[in-house]
Amino acid sequence: MSAPVTITPLSGIPEVREGDDLVTVIGLGLTASGLRLADGDVLVVSSKIASKALGLVTHDPDKDRVVAGETEYVVAERSVGDRITRIVRAKAGPIMAAAGVDGSNTGRRGGWLLLPHDPDAVCAHVHDAILERHGVRVGVVLSDTAGRAWRVGQVDFALGAHGVRVVDDLRGGTDADGRPLEVTTRALADEIASAADLAKGKAEAVPAALVRGLGRFVLTAGDEPLEAHPRGRDLVRTGPGDWFGYGRVEAVRASLGIEPGSEVAERVGIAPVHGDSRLEAVARATQAALHGVESGTADIGHVSVTLGADGPYELGILTARLCSALWCEWLVGEPQTPAADGLSVVVGVSGRLDGH
Amino acid sequence: MSAPVTITPLSGIPEVREGDDLVTVIGLGLTASGLRLADGDVLVVSSKIASKALGLVTHDPDKDRVVAGETEYVVAERSVGDRITRIVRAKAGPIMAAAGVDGSNTGRRGGWLLLPHDPDAVCAHVHDAILERHGVRVGVVLSDTAGRAWRVGQVDFALGAHGVRVVDDLRGGTDADGRPLEVTTRALADEIASAADLAKGKAEAVPAALVRGLGRFVLTAGDEPLEAHPRGRDLVRTGPGDWFGYGRVEAVRASLGIEPGSEVAERVGIAPVHGDSRLEAVARATQAALHGVESGTADIGHVSVTLGADGPYELGILTARLCSALWCEWLVGEPQTPAADGLSVVVGVSGRLDGH
Repeated sequence: MSAPVTITPLSGIPEVREGDDLVTVIGLGLTASGLRLADGDVLVVSSKIASKALGLVTHDPDKDRVVAGETEYVVAERSVGDRITRIVRAKAGPIMAAAGVDGSNTGRRGGWLLLPHDPDAVCAHVHDAILERHGVRVGVVLSDTAGRAWRVGQVDFALGAHGVRVVDDLRGGTDADGRPLEVTTRALADEIASAADLAKGKAEAVPAALVRGLGRFVLTAGDEPLEAHPRGRDLVRTGPGDWFGYGRVEAVRASLGIEPGSEVAERVGIAPVHGDSRLEAVARATQAALHGVESGTADIGHVSVTLGADGPYELGILTARLCSALWCEWLVGEPQTPAADGLSVVVGVSGRLDGH
Repeated sequence: MSAPVTITPLSGIPEVREGDDLVTVIGLGLTASGLRLADGDVLVVSSKIASKALGLVTHDPDKDRVVAGETEYVVAERSVGDRITRIVRAKAGPIMAAAGVDGSNTGRRGGWLLLPHDPDAVCAHVHDAILERHGVRVGVVLSDTAGRAWRVGQVDFALGAHGVRVVDDLRGGTDADGRPLEVTTRALADEIASAADLAKGKAEAVPAALVRGLGRFVLTAGDEPLEAHPRGRDLVRTGPGDWFGYGRVEAVRASLGIEPGSEVAERVGIAPVHGDSRLEAVARATQAALHGVESGTADIGHVSVTLGADGPYELGILTARLCSALWCEWLVGEPQTPAADGLSVVVGVSGRLDGH
């Protein structure tokens, strides 16, 4: 039988400044909360106080530039007024909006907090310092907050981890009836981060929580070296194993040579978060089609686009590109028969009713 | 200050059978665990026992057919041997693998467990029965397990909810320093489900947990009607607001008229989970290009594909389609100059090094 799990928020942690020692400030929180660390505890620390202690703050007023500096590559993007909001693979590891660059709760001086690029190392430092000073082995999770594909709202997840199993691998396991388990790998560290968030809250600026009752997942001396166990970074899925490395719109545009996050993408135009008019959507799709077809021309209307090119082969390329690009805008292109000279074609445009 | 949160697994729940009353079996678990429900508690119940009680089981040996019956539409798909594994929008609401159809822990008779199509109604029933029989107002979350885009492993999430705030909307709120909060909507119900999973475990078949300390999120008599509050279904994000309604591969193929989950997609070929040879990938991309270009022909090689068509316009369409389809396979197509008669072109094929 599993035992109860208890999550206690660590209040009484003062505002953290650059150069502060994380284990010391966490110790203040433990004392204020009347707690003493024990073997098998899991300590969940908000990335925010780690970033503050490490001085990972910038006062560059241009948030987009700050985000670009923290970005490996762009997964999806939408325009919001004269800015662009991007979901990116962050240098810190995960795929998240704005690379985790955060302007709230940054302390009295403001600015943008950046995520540590090696969050597991931050956890290892906390883990080792606690072992050295307090003589106890705890799991450490560095938590951050992110939105998800397919679901509303944000949850906390494990940006980093050390000394705790980040996955509970049940592959090869059987259920209570002896049949193979269909769910094979539980993302424990993410569930721990989410659980801690319930106790920590967001607005109250409680930056850490102590989780008790998960000792079976905390690695012990016999599990050395801890670095060899999967950690926070290993919870990030990228490459062909991730089927969602581009947004639906960005995948199609990238297949047309328009990579998200590129100057080309901005020149072609980036769809606004809240939608725009049919004519603007058709114009954006047409710009995407024209990209890379040097001789291409287009006359854009509400219900059709008339395409032109130097020759019928180029016209065919342009037409196929437009049909793909219209799909990105929840529109359907239906090419009519090209003109007799093969140098122009009318592509009818209609709305798509069945889109997801 | 936030109070501690305690999660207690409800052991002692017997195997649930069709027709069993959920509130009665949960009551057995509470008694066995020495617990008594109180106002402000949140009860997290695994969908599995709800499905069993409702008799949502089928013994059709063809899992793919069972999944298709529980599917609204397909988001992404890969072949695994002679089967196809699909991430779909389930009739139960969320986007999840195999529509949540589950063959483990299904009880002694086996079969496939299906998810209830109105999980919030299941929660409402439990909520109301507890209020009637025990006179207490608890939040009820029906939990299930799913993988995520971008991250390794599965977590529990709120398939359904009633009587508890599913989101903590902080929009318009300010941080401890008075600046607007960047994280605006916490998906509370999902975090509650994840937290409960830590206590319940997977292999042990503990199908429910009691969460204490979140009373501030439990709706009270003054919050009637509870149905008007966001519930589990409202945590599902679909349509243009979801930027990941198709996988990267499926988006491009859909833009070429090859919708995931369709017979056309199967005929064109579905990429295997674990990758295949360059030649197989090129062949699949070529089949996708040929779809809908009636006069198209192709001669497929390792480093190039020679395309042919009745006329140069059709050849252009075919060429553009091939370049898009090759992108799906992490390949790049580079068309050479078409033949003098405009009826054939060689498209060079190379690997893409920078893909995500």
